[in-house]
Amino acid sequence: MEKDIDKILKNLRLSEKASLLSGGDFWQTEAVERLNIPAIFLVDGPHGVRYVADRDHDDPAKKATCFPTAVNLAASWDLNLIKKAAAALAVEAKARGVDVLLGPGINIKRSPLGGRNFEYFSEDPFLSAELAVEFIKTVQKNGVGTSLKHYVANNQEYKRFSIDAQIDERPLREIYLAAFEKVIKEANPWTVMAAYNQINGDFATENDYLLQDILRDQWGYDNLVVSDWWAVHNRVKALKAGLDLEMPGADPVNDQKVIDAVQAGELKEEVVDQAVRRILELILKTQKKAKKDFKLPVEEHHQLAKEIAGETIVLLKNQGPLLPLTAAKLADKESILVVGELAQKPSYQGIGSSQVNPTRLDNHYQALEDKFGEELELHYTPGYNSEAEPGENESLKEKALRVAENKDYVIIYAGLPEQAEAEGYDRQDMQLPKEQNQLIKELAAVNPNIIVILNNGSAVDLRQWLDKVSAVIEAGLPGQAGASALADIIAGEINPSAKLAESYPLKLEDNPSYLNFPGSSDSVRYGEGIYIGYRYYDKRKMEVLFPFGYGLSYTEFAYRALEAPDYLAEGDKLKIKILIENTGQFKGKEIIQLYLSQQNPSLARPPKELKGFGKIELEPGEKEWLELELDYQDLAYYHPQAGWIVESDRFKIMIGASSREIKFTEDIEVESSFVLKDLTAKSPFEDWLADPLGEKAVKEVLTEAEIEEIGFLKAWPLYRMHFFTPEQVSFEEIEEILDIYENN
Amino acid sequence: MEKDIDKILKNLRLSEKASLLSGGDFWQTEAVERLNIPAIFLVDGPHGVRYVADRDHDDPAKKATCFPTAVNLAASWDLNLIKKAAAALAVEAKARGVDVLLGPGINIKRSPLGGRNFEYFSEDPFLSAELAVEFIKTVQKNGVGTSLKHYVANNQEYKRFSIDAQIDERPLREIYLAAFEKVIKEANPWTVMAAYNQINGDFATENDYLLQDILRDQWGYDNLVVSDWWAVHNRVKALKAGLDLEMPGADPVNDQKVIDAVQAGELKEEVVDQAVRRILELILKTQKKAKKDFKLPVEEHHQLAKEIAGETIVLLKNQGPLLPLTAAKLADKESILVVGELAQKPSYQGIGSSQVNPTRLDNHYQALEDKFGEELELHYTPGYNSEAEPGENESLKEKALRVAENKDYVIIYAGLPEQAEAEGYDRQDMQLPKEQNQLIKELAAVNPNIIVILNNGSAVDLRQWLDKVSAVIEAGLPGQAGASALADIIAGEINPSAKLAESYPLKLEDNPSYLNFPGSSDSVRYGEGIYIGYRYYDKRKMEVLFPFGYGLSYTEFAYRALEAPDYLAEGDKLKIKILIENTGQFKGKEIIQLYLSQQNPSLARPPKELKGFGKIELEPGEKEWLELELDYQDLAYYHPQAGWIVESDRFKIMIGASSREIKFTEDIEVESSFVLKDLTAKSPFEDWLADPLGEKAVKEVLTEAEIEEIGFLKAWPLYRMHFFTPEQVSFEEIEEILDIYENN
Repeated sequence: MEKDIDKILKNLRLSEKASLLSGGDFWQTEAVERLNIPAIFLVDGPHGVRYVADRDHDDPAKKATCFPTAVNLAASWDLNLIKKAAAALAVEAKARGVDVLLGPGINIKRSPLGGRNFEYFSEDPFLSAELAVEFIKTVQKNGVGTSLKHYVANNQEYKRFSIDAQIDERPLREIYLAAFEKVIKEANPWTVMAAYNQINGDFATENDYLLQDILRDQWGYDNLVVSDWWAVHNRVKALKAGLDLEMPGADPVNDQKVIDAVQAGELKEEVVDQAVRRILELILKTQKKAKKDFKLPVEEHHQLAKEIAGETIVLLKNQGPLLPLTAAKLADKESILVVGELAQKPSYQGIGSSQVNPTRLDNHYQALEDKFGEELELHYTPGYNSEAEPGENESLKEKALRVAENKDYVIIYAGLPEQAEAEGYDRQDMQLPKEQNQLIKELAAVNPNIIVILNNGSAVDLRQWLDKVSAVIEAGLPGQAGASALADIIAGEINPSAKLAESYPLKLEDNPSYLNFPGSSDSVRYGEGIYIGYRYYDKRKMEVLFPFGYGLSYTEFAYRALEAPDYLAEGDKLKIKILIENTGQFKGKEIIQLYLSQQNPSLARPPKELKGFGKIELEPGEKEWLELELDYQDLAYYHPQAGWIVESDRFKIMIGASSREIKFTEDIEVESSFVLKDLTAKSPFEDWLADPLGEKAVKEVLTEAEIEEIGFLKAWPLYRMHFFTPEQVSFEEIEEILDIYENN
Repeated sequence: MEKDIDKILKNLRLSEKASLLSGGDFWQTEAVERLNIPAIFLVDGPHGVRYVADRDHDDPAKKATCFPTAVNLAASWDLNLIKKAAAALAVEAKARGVDVLLGPGINIKRSPLGGRNFEYFSEDPFLSAELAVEFIKTVQKNGVGTSLKHYVANNQEYKRFSIDAQIDERPLREIYLAAFEKVIKEANPWTVMAAYNQINGDFATENDYLLQDILRDQWGYDNLVVSDWWAVHNRVKALKAGLDLEMPGADPVNDQKVIDAVQAGELKEEVVDQAVRRILELILKTQKKAKKDFKLPVEEHHQLAKEIAGETIVLLKNQGPLLPLTAAKLADKESILVVGELAQKPSYQGIGSSQVNPTRLDNHYQALEDKFGEELELHYTPGYNSEAEPGENESLKEKALRVAENKDYVIIYAGLPEQAEAEGYDRQDMQLPKEQNQLIKELAAVNPNIIVILNNGSAVDLRQWLDKVSAVIEAGLPGQAGASALADIIAGEINPSAKLAESYPLKLEDNPSYLNFPGSSDSVRYGEGIYIGYRYYDKRKMEVLFPFGYGLSYTEFAYRALEAPDYLAEGDKLKIKILIENTGQFKGKEIIQLYLSQQNPSLARPPKELKGFGKIELEPGEKEWLELELDYQDLAYYHPQAGWIVESDRFKIMIGASSREIKFTEDIEVESSFVLKDLTAKSPFEDWLADPLGEKAVKEVLTEAEIEEIGFLKAWPLYRMHFFTPEQVSFEEIEEILDIYENN
């Protein structure tokens, strides 16, 4: 293929250009054989390469390693781990001849009910962005493209192909776009995928404001925008808005529309050329590194999937502590009862476009058998059946209760049914299946040593039995080797270190989006604004079941010291050191979180915003300094009139083991030359006088005596000063004040 | 004055017309002496006639009876009581030569912090409307005009002259406009007052959508719209939008602008004529009944103010029961300690335009002395000073503690400081003054018989001491005779019967508007939508301190029976009978509340909506049926695409002693011929198939076989059926489906 894109463009006929603008088939772009332009492959990710060779004949996807899903990866808070996963994914993509992996997904978890939550990282944009940056950089460094998705506001599956997400400018920027902005700027993904839904009245694929003004003009993104599959409605409008590649490619109607529009003078050929240029650039990038010689390292990657999974499983409760079941602890024990269909039939990923055909699949019961079988008796009883006949669950439960009574430990595998973690379907509530809750409650009454293993991709309501059981482990959806990693955790060979990347509210009704989720027949108002996740629970001073950033370890960490400056000059990096000591008995890793709070912002800000984190591994008794470095820009918030701003103010630096367990708080004075200019003729006169630039402008035009005379009107808009007191203030003077202010 | 308005209009010069469009002075319209057109007086209300004769010389308002404020009137839930108050206000207006009383105010209490809450009735539009209808009908029947205010969304004082309230269509209609709509249609006030603030980007005085489309065209209002004082910004725009009368009249600039605009052809003279016609109509109406011979019946109205106050005071807690302090109960008692500055300096109304110069003012301590002085020793100690020197409150408290120890009862008068109930200022929190909370807490530790009397116009946070005291009475802001009424209640001569017309949340952070109150520098988003007050606390399943509709009595009521139909035909009235029995020892009144809940609405509705109420007085042992009658239209909710609709559905009828104490629940099938037509080409194909009219339209155009073939695409918008399957579905067919649907 010719390397000079200008040359190719000159040689391409309009019909060929139009054909390049949409896919050649389900997974490939269109080739142009005449000019030796190859088709490239874009294939579903993001936790495994899902390549279906012949979709029309219902071929299963080719086998690939199913790594832990995004909800798990995020719980690791570990950029090195993300790197390992991403590098392995790149290898698998290359082994399958895949040019672009369609991921990562970084939409914000607005509601625990969102059907694709398990595919997304977090309720927090900062954490989401940090993980995605590492993911993308690593995949792309290995010669495979990524697709940052779904741009933007795919926060529910209800009517996802038509719903209009109505979001005010500030939450749109500060919550829903924030992670995209950071990732675009820091990792420059080869492609961005436009979502299915509408945002403020326009489809994501046709949204000029989002695609052109924000993504291209403000963020400077010049790579390719691809549609989610079939998400383009009006092809010409989409093209004008900046949607380059329509996928998939079954439909020639749209290609013809592009040709017609150009010929009718309704669409400039330069617009077509620009999109084609981006497609050609992408194709060229993918040609740079050979992919053919890669083999799928099945065993190696299975081990890696296990290693990664071990870092993504969250210990929620450990009374006693009951866990881990070390050899010493088991010395005088005889038996473990394993309960739950999911112990034999692991729930390890969700349903939908991300679903991988795994190379292998570890089984929980088998993993426990391998781990403990030589020393102890292991028993299994299903306890429940997710597709039970009437009455069946009752008798399964009774049987489990009988068996459980004389066992030393009972490990229950609970979780959401398959269809609850599925692209296309939101959950209806936060409950586990009734029969599981009932089973756990009753088992807890007959055996004191209950360990519950949860398998679910989003927050669940555990209040029915949480205080009755000894230990709870949130396994998430940990991929094909999750079962083995989990057995290691139970045995204490892995010390759990993951922490929740989303809040677990007490009940569904507590969730910030509850009043407006999933919206009415055609739209959904994001009425809670910027207050999503812990931002909301903090603001409302609400109790939660498990806070954002929460997770236990088998060891204990003491936060010994914080070194932080008390002053930050404009543009400087904020450098912080925290001394952590492992004061427990196990080697372990601690995730340390840094939250900021601005004390007197011009617009209200959340009580706490995550702006840094780190993970540190320590031997018992060992201590170490963790260093965190924040960009000055991380202190910013989005002001609808002024954009991202850092204001001169006092900030609180909070160092936490979770968002609700703050270990250190320290004040810092932040210096900024930014001056907010949001005064208008409608602003109250008192606001003009209270603002340095406003006051200056007023005083250049009005005398002190005049200002005093009209002072009793200070709550009224500036321009009303004329109506009230035409003898003191003329319209010309008001215009002058506005002019001076604007030009200062 | 000539009675034929057409004739007057013909004779008026343009300059005279323009002059009529704004006031002649602060309280009067402009007179046109040449044509014998008199000026009329518009004077502040609504709980007393506040007439300041010579405002420029700081004259105090002429004396008038200060009746209980709106917060109290609403707590009576008593339309007859409203009638009595309104009739008396009309008499006082006439005695002062006032033509239009500027009230009632019916804005919805969005936040407990709103500075004018005490001037407004409730967080519920139905209750607000019922009270206002009776108020307006009565005042106007007596020959005095009213002004329904503030149209609309004056829900805060923060930047009230400039703030832009951003409200979606459904909450705007169903919450903020709903009471206005009902009152306009049922009571036809002589004037409506446009508010200061902006709504969705336009000032209330210039808001074409609110003034023309909704008020005039949809509701059919043809009386006068007057501006709040100085609220007109652009006079010509306001006039075009339907703002007839600008008040007050200090500024001739705007009159000239009107003339200029007419002469420049920018404003049709018919628009001016229409406004002038409405002003003349109002003047004519006010001339019909003589006002000169009325005298202010000072003593009679003071007694009436007391009678009314007695019905508006809410008993919140009465452990024991400690209250009432009957003669029998006091037989072996010796002393009462009265604590609190407010006992001597009653808090009985708020600050601002509603502030009345009272004809008399009862004093709490004196009222108690009159009531109990002959039998018991009464002591007074201030306990706190709202303008204390440093340390002073500490010693006042210590003194109170010493005195309280050996007294039989301690009655503490607590409440908000004057400036907390003030037009122009929102509160910053829901707390009583610190020194009062501290005093009550400590007094409760030394004396078991604490009675707290609250004096405040909006919800307060009582959690610091509520469980430590025996009795709490919410006196509200009960007007000039409130102290005497309260003494009667304490003595048991009046049995309290009022119930809260607003929820008392546990804490400020619980309030639905908390995330968005009072907004940013120029706007405030009503992100909580329709979920205001109890609608929100119910929806979120939250505990509250005191629920909407809550109030105790000295007697007990048993809800014996409910008679309600199980079916309601379209357009029929819903008639319900409830049998109530007084099972206690005192004669008393019970407020019975009827809530509705629609089971499967097309758009989510609140779990409970007040749609009826009644008040019944019973002797001990007596029982009686209360009959309630609802209009069919009371079952409606507002659908942005379809307007107010009643849907065929099952409804729950709930009869409650409060919104959280439901005594009876019964289902009713409601029949409606209404068919919602909200499908568009963007609606999912499955929605078309699920909708009877939609399905019919689809089936007239597509064959069963075609429908089946495209069935797997059902989640996609209708018009995408073509893109996916051009061989099955053409654009023409989709157009045909839409046509058939629209015209069915």
